Amino acid sequence: MSKIAVLITDLFEDVEYTKPAAAFRKAGHDLIHIGLQAGKAVKGKTARTPVTIDEAVKDVSVDDFDALLIPGGYSPDKLRVDDTAVNFVKAFVESNKPVFAICHAPQLLITAQVLTGRKITGWKSIIQDIKNAGAEYIDQEVVEDDNIISSRQPSDIPAFIKAALAKLQ
Amino acid sequence: MSKIAVLITDLFEDVEYTKPAAAFRKAGHDLIHIGLQAGKAVKGKTARTPVTIDEAVKDVSVDDFDALLIPGGYSPDKLRVDDTAVNFVKAFVESNKPVFAICHAPQLLITAQVLTGRKITGWKSIIQDIKNAGAEYIDQEVVEDDNIISSRQPSDIPAFIKAALAKLQ
Repeated sequence: MSKIAVLITDLFEDVEYTKPAAAFRKAGHDLIHIGLQAGKAVKGKTARTPVTIDEAVKDVSVDDFDALLIPGGYSPDKLRVDDTAVNFVKAFVESNKPVFAICHAPQLLITAQVLTGRKITGWKSIIQDIKNAGAEYIDQEVVEDDNIISSRQPSDIPAFIKAALAKLQ
Repeated sequence: MSKIAVLITDLFEDVEYTKPAAAFRKAGHDLIHIGLQAGKAVKGKTARTPVTIDEAVKDVSVDDFDALLIPGGYSPDKLRVDDTAVNFVKAFVESNKPVFAICHAPQLLITAQVLTGRKITGWKSIIQDIKNAGAEYIDQEVVEDDNIISSRQPSDIPAFIKAALAKLQ
């Protein structure tokens, strides 16, 4: 039973939240939705899936959680302009607790400057950004490098979930 | 009278297209909308401004135009996964013809790998990406470095237009 922070805001890629969230809950884990403002309802960019933010990122600490899930879409682009969100991600990566990043999620890790020498994958639009950040981009459905588990896109979700669940056990 | 290519697709930041486009036309310049598919109607992310693509990027060359305008929003993220769009931007920068880039537009220049040693600005979410690409990020309303004129956000549009029009004369 792990306590998983989901760092999320508007325009997230719906299935990159809904499918991992359902699988994590089915396995008995708890999800806490972390965003820019507690109580705010955010929505996905495709299916407009509603998510209510449980806690503002400024009010939480990596110590409160066992793992971090960052869905993709345009949510990471919106979160990476907020220093508290970036510092939360940075603290998570440095804590060595599991970080599950899919699609555009590595954008937050780039701004947090924690990718030097790491192996990671992500959505094809950000490949050059990932390389320029000093990481090794690997074009496969799931990449596991120590505590960072990453995938490229919605079609990778089954492999992403499998790797994440194994890491949580 | 210049012939200006506008590289654009869905989810562009409406005013970063509409305001420069109106100013360029008023000054007597022609706009040709370049996208992924000729005849396609694309829309802005905020006001849903409709734009019809005149020519597919695969069918045009930098030789056909005098300058390039790249509006921001999420349009550059969608365009940078297309090699022909990236190569078109690369050719433009290397041709030394004016390139007007605002907000997220530098993402296309990053993927085109043309920013090493250049001075540029852009939307705050991509500051680290700009720095990692080897450019010098400058936090001001408009930055002019040889043929690249860049701005950060919608509030910079008047300065962006002024600098662009001066470059076209």
